[in-house]
Amino acid sequence: MDETLEAEIAKRLKRDEAGLVAAIIQQHDTAEVLMLGWMDDEALRRTLTQGRVTFWSRSRQEYWRKGDTSGHIQIVKSVALDCDGDALLIGVAQTGAACHTGTRSCFDGGLIL
Amino acid sequence: MDETLEAEIAKRLKRDEAGLVAAIIQQHDTAEVLMLGWMDDEALRRTLTQGRVTFWSRSRQEYWRKGDTSGHIQIVKSVALDCDGDALLIGVAQTGAACHTGTRSCFDGGLIL
Repeated sequence: MDETLEAEIAKRLKRDEAGLVAAIIQQHDTAEVLMLGWMDDEALRRTLTQGRVTFWSRSRQEYWRKGDTSGHIQIVKSVALDCDGDALLIGVAQTGAACHTGTRSCFDGGLIL
Repeated sequence: MDETLEAEIAKRLKRDEAGLVAAIIQQHDTAEVLMLGWMDDEALRRTLTQGRVTFWSRSRQEYWRKGDTSGHIQIVKSVALDCDGDALLIGVAQTGAACHTGTRSCFDGGLIL
């Protein structure tokens, strides 16, 4: 298994000042948007090679494989990079709640319009 | 019409070093994710009050109301803020292609897994 992100993918990424791209997590069969997380090259490499979604936590400054603590894992079904390389759309099979508050989506209850 | 973003909303935003939050754009009736853009407080205020989506362009460093040049406008149907305030999910009615490359979604053709 490769230990670095494929060069062809890495060169397409447009990272922010912190070296991160945004990762939209979408339930693969219902198209519900569950959450948005952040990935550096290594988090993306792990996500592409392990079949489970790994993020970089901006608040805790550490890697975070979704579900390792909560059991609410995300099985990777597809990964797409957008046209300008600063966002990923990741289709997953989500177990249980995606949100740490216990709701299915991190956007549930957050309507402002 | 208010000239500043409502204080109650503004205090919930967790902005990055550039003062931005991520905005996921989703076709409201099909749930297709069309693109991801960036918003500062003013772009969000305009989006909430004008019924059209306005972004902050990180590359051009200017406001950008989607469709003003291309005609591919986004009519705002809903806006939700996530649990930790660093991402918006915006339901829209998209006219034509969301992507500047001419594809419906900025993720079309970008599959890496």
